[in-house]
Amino acid sequence: MNLAELGQSTGLDLQDHSLYQQAFTHTSYAHEKKGIRMLPDNERLEFLGDAVLELTVSEYLYQRFPKMKEGDLTRMRARVVCEPSLAMFARQLRFGDHIRLGRGEEMTGGRNRPSLLADVFEAFIGALYLEKGLDAIRQFLEAKIFPQIDESWLAQATDAKSQLQEAVQQERLGALEYHIVDVQGPAHDRQFVAEVWLSGQKLGSGTGRSKKEAEQQAAAEGLERFKQQKK
Amino acid sequence: MNLAELGQSTGLDLQDHSLYQQAFTHTSYAHEKKGIRMLPDNERLEFLGDAVLELTVSEYLYQRFPKMKEGDLTRMRARVVCEPSLAMFARQLRFGDHIRLGRGEEMTGGRNRPSLLADVFEAFIGALYLEKGLDAIRQFLEAKIFPQIDESWLAQATDAKSQLQEAVQQERLGALEYHIVDVQGPAHDRQFVAEVWLSGQKLGSGTGRSKKEAEQQAAAEGLERFKQQKK
Repeated sequence: MNLAELGQSTGLDLQDHSLYQQAFTHTSYAHEKKGIRMLPDNERLEFLGDAVLELTVSEYLYQRFPKMKEGDLTRMRARVVCEPSLAMFARQLRFGDHIRLGRGEEMTGGRNRPSLLADVFEAFIGALYLEKGLDAIRQFLEAKIFPQIDESWLAQATDAKSQLQEAVQQERLGALEYHIVDVQGPAHDRQFVAEVWLSGQKLGSGTGRSKKEAEQQAAAEGLERFKQQKK
Repeated sequence: MNLAELGQSTGLDLQDHSLYQQAFTHTSYAHEKKGIRMLPDNERLEFLGDAVLELTVSEYLYQRFPKMKEGDLTRMRARVVCEPSLAMFARQLRFGDHIRLGRGEEMTGGRNRPSLLADVFEAFIGALYLEKGLDAIRQFLEAKIFPQIDESWLAQATDAKSQLQEAVQQERLGALEYHIVDVQGPAHDRQFVAEVWLSGQKLGSGTGRSKKEAEQQAAAEGLERFKQQKK
């Protein structure tokens, strides 16, 4: 781990060498170098960093989308704080170069494995939080991460119709049908009620201020039921 | 919702009436009172509060148990930030008195339902975070919640042997057997290797600095496999 290089790629003034050293130490390396005392690996920092990310990303989405419902916020957060996304951020910041790995992991390509990179990203966030606190995390994410979270990126996470379509196709279960079954309320406060059906079975229903919104809600409920049935 | 009473039971100087009003408004009430504009319910605050709790509890456990491994920290956090625990905290603070509920929910005992109380606790934390920030949350938890988190409470969460025993008994699957199968390393750095077996099948193995620790690790692995097999 090279603190100067790490400071450069992250745009941060990092001080505590041993803390960041730990963030980039995979458990396989710690096990290999084990003497009388175990070398600290990054797993505890990863535990902390994961929670720091959950909060800062939640807060960001909460402020950015003041009208968005809890369900969509949760889906968006999961889209940001997930292995593929965190691994991508880690790659952009060239975190792979700094990881201390055991020989076995190195030989089997551990340095490029998404799960390992995502863990290192979380551990780095944990270390940064311990050294500089929540404001520094917010500044770092606003500089390097949040600008990437554009509307289309997030739309994927909330597009329940596409997700349901994909799930149904994978199982070759026939065609989904959407129906608007009711329209309620006065003109200035219309509520549409939609249902989604699959092979004669109602998968879900939903309401919304537009047909599209009602269908998305119905699809979200359908997606839940579909997952439940597969368990 | 009575802000003065709420301030008294929580020991906090709360200011933003409409924010805490929202935290104690269940969606059933918001739906019932719906006019031209929807009344804000507590679901978005719950989303935020959940993440605030995850971080503050993680940080507390991280500092309090400087040697504890990530797996045990995660299990302990889940023991604290879970529906039964949060509902208990909400009851202690008499949060039920402040909730605004729809008539249907009220009639079916919603005011005492653990899931609803847990949600309200999270929403309150979300509101407090927005008004006063992370330090205030830490102070509140240190005054009212953390003193309850004693060793025996947490031990439950990390006692994998008891949990595995319970799971196996429920399914009437016979007796668990633990074996120490290897002892490695020099005297000052002993590593024990334990295995746990059930009806001729190895469920898990684990290592540790004591036999007990190795058995707990083996049980934790066994518990994972056991849950996987049940899916």
